[in-house]
Amino acid sequence: MLPDTHLLGRTDAGHVLIQHDAALPWFIVVPETATTDLLDLDAPHRERLLETCAALSRYVKNDLGFPKVNVASIGNVVPRLHVHVVGRRPGDPCWPAPVWGNLATGERYAPERIAEMTAALERLIALRPA
Amino acid sequence: MLPDTHLLGRTDAGHVLIQHDAALPWFIVVPETATTDLLDLDAPHRERLLETCAALSRYVKNDLGFPKVNVASIGNVVPRLHVHVVGRRPGDPCWPAPVWGNLATGERYAPERIAEMTAALERLIALRPA
Repeated sequence: MLPDTHLLGRTDAGHVLIQHDAALPWFIVVPETATTDLLDLDAPHRERLLETCAALSRYVKNDLGFPKVNVASIGNVVPRLHVHVVGRRPGDPCWPAPVWGNLATGERYAPERIAEMTAALERLIALRPA
Repeated sequence: MLPDTHLLGRTDAGHVLIQHDAALPWFIVVPETATTDLLDLDAPHRERLLETCAALSRYVKNDLGFPKVNVASIGNVVPRLHVHVVGRRPGDPCWPAPVWGNLATGERYAPERIAEMTAALERLIALRPA
């Protein structure tokens, strides 16, 4: 669905993916819509999307232990609307620069780690199979 | 309030600033809150903030003629919560890279242009003096 990502499942807001680079928890939410810019969504749709993003942010902070979460919807390369939710901490591999274009550690998630995170998100944000 | 910016005014959501670099329309909304991450705001506060961002986005698209708007809340360098709303178009000075860390053309707004944009935003998004 997006390059260099793994599809974890979906919520009412859309599909939830994770970037392959395991150095930072970098989630992407992809709603089902033909609109390409976040700020062009009508308010209820935008809110549903941001509720899933906020739930992912709580997981990143409370369970994965990252103190800071960056959120962005850019889409200059991939036009399909998607929102990045990225855990950050001082000293991380590209701190304090943004991750876009700056994170390529080559670190990869083990399949067991993907399964663990998927199970946690099923419990915490009502993730279900895509 | 933030480096390299000019304060245009405020809305119910907070202060509205513009980056000095005039190559792209790059607005920043700074709400009055001690919360530092956008996704930690409660939903009503977040929505008020995003309504102002969406109104800025309409101005960028409809009045300034940029087809794409990037939106992000990063704050790794400046902890105070702020949201970027940036007009983009293919072929712009850092397309398709994100603007953060990648835009430094040295182009500056004339004071008359700042006054024009302020007047437009007073009309379009109920901007008022800060």
